[in-house]
Amino acid sequence: MAKNVSDEHGFKGVETISSSSSPRSSPYVHEVGVPPKQNLLKEIAAAVKETLFADDPLRHFKDQPSSKKFILGLQAIFPILEWGKHYNLSKFKGDLIAGLTIASLCIPQDIGYAKLANLEPQYGLYSSFVPPLVYAFMGSSRDIAIGPVAVVSLLLGSLLQDEIDSSANPVGYRHLAFTATFFAGLTQFILGFFRLGFLIDFLSHAAIVGFMGGAAVTIALQQLKGLLGIKKFTKDTDIVSVMSSVFSSARHGWNWHTILIGISFLIFLSVTKYIGKKQKKFFWVPAIAPLISVIISTVTVYATRADKHGVEIVKNIRKGINPPSVKEIFFSGQYAGKGFKIGVVSGMIALTEAVAIGRTFASMKDYQLDGNKEMIALGTMNIVGSMTSCYVATGSFSRSAVNYMSGCETAVSNIVMACVVLLTLALITPLFEYTPNAILASIIISAVVGLVDIEAVTLIWKIDKFDFIACMGAFFGVVFSSVEVGLVIAVSISFAKILLQVTRPRTAILGKVPRTATVYRNIQQYPDATKVSGILIVRVDSAIYFSNSNYVKERILRWLADEEHVKENSQPRFQYLIIEMGPVTDIDTSGIHALEELFRALQKRDIKLVLANPGPVVVDKLHASKFQELIGEGRIFLTVADAVRICYSKMELEP
Amino acid sequence: MAKNVSDEHGFKGVETISSSSSPRSSPYVHEVGVPPKQNLLKEIAAAVKETLFADDPLRHFKDQPSSKKFILGLQAIFPILEWGKHYNLSKFKGDLIAGLTIASLCIPQDIGYAKLANLEPQYGLYSSFVPPLVYAFMGSSRDIAIGPVAVVSLLLGSLLQDEIDSSANPVGYRHLAFTATFFAGLTQFILGFFRLGFLIDFLSHAAIVGFMGGAAVTIALQQLKGLLGIKKFTKDTDIVSVMSSVFSSARHGWNWHTILIGISFLIFLSVTKYIGKKQKKFFWVPAIAPLISVIISTVTVYATRADKHGVEIVKNIRKGINPPSVKEIFFSGQYAGKGFKIGVVSGMIALTEAVAIGRTFASMKDYQLDGNKEMIALGTMNIVGSMTSCYVATGSFSRSAVNYMSGCETAVSNIVMACVVLLTLALITPLFEYTPNAILASIIISAVVGLVDIEAVTLIWKIDKFDFIACMGAFFGVVFSSVEVGLVIAVSISFAKILLQVTRPRTAILGKVPRTATVYRNIQQYPDATKVSGILIVRVDSAIYFSNSNYVKERILRWLADEEHVKENSQPRFQYLIIEMGPVTDIDTSGIHALEELFRALQKRDIKLVLANPGPVVVDKLHASKFQELIGEGRIFLTVADAVRICYSKMELEP
Repeated sequence: MAKNVSDEHGFKGVETISSSSSPRSSPYVHEVGVPPKQNLLKEIAAAVKETLFADDPLRHFKDQPSSKKFILGLQAIFPILEWGKHYNLSKFKGDLIAGLTIASLCIPQDIGYAKLANLEPQYGLYSSFVPPLVYAFMGSSRDIAIGPVAVVSLLLGSLLQDEIDSSANPVGYRHLAFTATFFAGLTQFILGFFRLGFLIDFLSHAAIVGFMGGAAVTIALQQLKGLLGIKKFTKDTDIVSVMSSVFSSARHGWNWHTILIGISFLIFLSVTKYIGKKQKKFFWVPAIAPLISVIISTVTVYATRADKHGVEIVKNIRKGINPPSVKEIFFSGQYAGKGFKIGVVSGMIALTEAVAIGRTFASMKDYQLDGNKEMIALGTMNIVGSMTSCYVATGSFSRSAVNYMSGCETAVSNIVMACVVLLTLALITPLFEYTPNAILASIIISAVVGLVDIEAVTLIWKIDKFDFIACMGAFFGVVFSSVEVGLVIAVSISFAKILLQVTRPRTAILGKVPRTATVYRNIQQYPDATKVSGILIVRVDSAIYFSNSNYVKERILRWLADEEHVKENSQPRFQYLIIEMGPVTDIDTSGIHALEELFRALQKRDIKLVLANPGPVVVDKLHASKFQELIGEGRIFLTVADAVRICYSKMELEP
Repeated sequence: MAKNVSDEHGFKGVETISSSSSPRSSPYVHEVGVPPKQNLLKEIAAAVKETLFADDPLRHFKDQPSSKKFILGLQAIFPILEWGKHYNLSKFKGDLIAGLTIASLCIPQDIGYAKLANLEPQYGLYSSFVPPLVYAFMGSSRDIAIGPVAVVSLLLGSLLQDEIDSSANPVGYRHLAFTATFFAGLTQFILGFFRLGFLIDFLSHAAIVGFMGGAAVTIALQQLKGLLGIKKFTKDTDIVSVMSSVFSSARHGWNWHTILIGISFLIFLSVTKYIGKKQKKFFWVPAIAPLISVIISTVTVYATRADKHGVEIVKNIRKGINPPSVKEIFFSGQYAGKGFKIGVVSGMIALTEAVAIGRTFASMKDYQLDGNKEMIALGTMNIVGSMTSCYVATGSFSRSAVNYMSGCETAVSNIVMACVVLLTLALITPLFEYTPNAILASIIISAVVGLVDIEAVTLIWKIDKFDFIACMGAFFGVVFSSVEVGLVIAVSISFAKILLQVTRPRTAILGKVPRTATVYRNIQQYPDATKVSGILIVRVDSAIYFSNSNYVKERILRWLADEEHVKENSQPRFQYLIIEMGPVTDIDTSGIHALEELFRALQKRDIKLVLANPGPVVVDKLHASKFQELIGEGRIFLTVADAVRICYSKMELEP
């Protein structure tokens, strides 16, 4: 293709981008390829495809009859239709065991998490019934366990509490919670449907680690209320308010019966966790420990009537399955707007968590997960949930890990779990009446401790200091202020990093690596590399865009000034400046302007500008902007080595 | 340095990043350099320096005695102390002529621009007196002409009008204008002082071109009121409202005397502009034409008493120099907040314009301009201006060009201009009483037409389609809605471009360019390039960060799937995947995770992952994260060619 591009210029047998019709008289210098010119519409279509349909989701639909397309379409929406065909008894055995295990783990957690969201305990159980069922039909992850999770419960509770006081107006609060859940689902659905799932990639891993860790600490601190049996407790979540609340209540507020129950079961749970960690085959011990704790403690409290001695108990927990709640959602009025905002924020966080879990397990079992399809499934599940008295559900880290280790095969384990929750709701909820709050606090503390990922933080510190700042910023923001502040810090630092990266790209001076003929590399990385006298070789390590074009130009001129400064007088002055354009993947109008200004500045210093190894897009744009005509013939080369050789040979001809 | 890094592994004489203590038994494979390990504080200091002090502003201060440092410091704040020493009569001659020329151009423009900002005419003249004087002492551009400009006047007027109605409450409006000017100056000063000047680089060239063009069209349309002598005119600035206002007034509102004066002088101004453009030596003709038009038309109106026939005239214009206005600034209350917001927006736009002008002329005359120092000068000038009855002043494109062509040598031309404006204010303002508004309208139209830069738009279209969309978005946003909407569109599209670039980096399949031994390039750009059978070579063209790590991983796997799909059955299966890491300038924790996941996915397919040419930062982080230990020895090479050669030789050994 490149051969078709030709014009009237020739340059001493040197083949450059603009002179390719001359015969190859020199075997040493290679042509810079001009890619085939693309049609504008095709170009735009390709860009849209790469941005939104990078995973080519419709590839299976190609060349299929329309009846087949319909079935494929149904299967795309309900993956259960696809994998259900191959479902068999041996798979069901795995799913049954896994489902029972996560059900035993989720029931006590759900009751506790509902309290984090300032809702009555049954709403946690409701959210472990409908959403997992919907997900099982629409989701494509095989390992995720759906239900309420600690961080989202805390975030939702704290955002809702800012609008409506849950103790003064519990009905309005609940309505707002369903409204937020509805909009959270809608946000997730829309992001998936319009294939904007990549937006959640803008929250960096480091920021999530910090945010999760901070949320875990905050949640654990909140549990001191239940664990110590404190009656008057602050509504703020920052560590200073909570700790002063704890200490000020020390004189009169603590209940020693409660503390005894709480601490002893916390120790029990920690021991089972340790066992499960040490011996992989005992993974089920920590999974069923919470339910055992609940049963033992409930029976004990009931038998000893400890509630008469100040031990707080769950008391009222409604029997029966999810009542409908469509009419409780605010679709208009001021609370619709507030619910929308809260829904968007908590929906995005829930999404981030679910997608991270889905990807982790998919990569462990090596199957593909379509992030956007997942979002549609999660969104639908929360929309349906908001109409059936559920609050925001998502994938739980701890329960998904248990699900995976119990040998789940498909999403059927979620169905099994939902059935167990259904039976619990329909039959045995009244039995939880005497469950002490302290035991729920112990269970929550023991569950969230795992979210503080010291190992990940250490790794982040080792790999990237800026990531570490983001991580710590989010962590301390949550712990010392509030979840909202921590979240804002996490997002801002993530964005600042992207912007900084784009504004200040790296540049390097290249030298020839010893014992190679043609390899030019960064002299800071290869201190043995030798510079070529009279020629300065600079590499720009980024696309040149408006955000950095001015910096790149000035940085190159500063390299030149620095190098001229350190050069000894005996050495010849610089006659050529070669820019290695390999990493410059794109250039825009501002970038072309910057190159033109650089060219003029060099011209005044009698230094010639030479480009090496421009990529296809850059070649195209240099061509369109007539930049190559400006800098003259024979100034664009395939490799730095070619450029150096030709420049050096011409330099020797000069006096 | 690289040689100091050593560990216990060795790999068949192949020197890799982690095995460098073994003797160089093979002359063919080169070591990947590990840069000297930097101290953390040094690393952070270097990053801060590169971000905020990229131009090394304190380099002159090094190794100087403190008395010298004080003088250098003074000179840094007031560059006039430095260049003033070399000032002489011949330079003054140039400055005097240039100053007189721009003064004759600025006086009629100022009166018109003040009306755009809904202020009385004298405020335009005030703003051409104090700010240029302050700038002359503190600024470092030699060619910029300071004063009110059309776009900022329109923007300011339109933002202020949203808060206070200028006709109902002119005093409050004026106070808010000074408040906004104060905060505009403060914003500029702070950006410069904290060296955050790079923030204005986030408004792309293309967006500015579109915004300026749209503002010019809007301003020209606004002038139809004065040009046609329409009495009832809309307050909206969008083209639909304005044109319907023009047509609905056609029956009764147009004044034919006004139209005669307006149109004939518009033709006169256009002809002089054409002459100035065709013959460079007559550049002064369009520069003094506005003043001549004002004089002729004023005399004509006065002589014929055309104002009695409905020709609108300037009427009252206050005599005397700038009154103080410190007490008129709102430093507290609700209007302080509103003034702050308006000030930040108009200050940023004014800054963008001034810095663009400064850079353009600095590069034409090849002198350096410190953007941050310029911002401090512009900020101080507007802060002082806000206290002396001026509104936001900045560099004017048209007057700076005239200044340059008239042969200005230093900022003294601004002092000359300020003196002429001073004389005008002190002596002859009453003479402007009979100046018809129509002539001001003609002058403004003729001035802003130059802001519609068709040539730049054509170039943008040719070079970058996305830039073109940004440009048109800003243009149509301003024309069909309002300047604010246009500005928001321009900024949003600029940011979207940055984010898109970061989220979806390019990747390419490499092949060996024919007639070279070691050059591997994008096969789309070099269709002749040959793939190596059994080895897939992929290049990633961007730093791998959290925002794209997942995409990069999945894209590489998709390349693999695609290539396996097109491969004929006779060809061997892929055994190696080589990633050319040259353009990957940095990697963060998410990026390392993605590489680990990629490694595992490839392992399941029995394909070995090999990296070629990682840069210093990446090598460091691969080391810190123990990634190289994960992928095994002998998997990181200096060049793709090395990697291919070694992989190929090992492949032949396999069955």
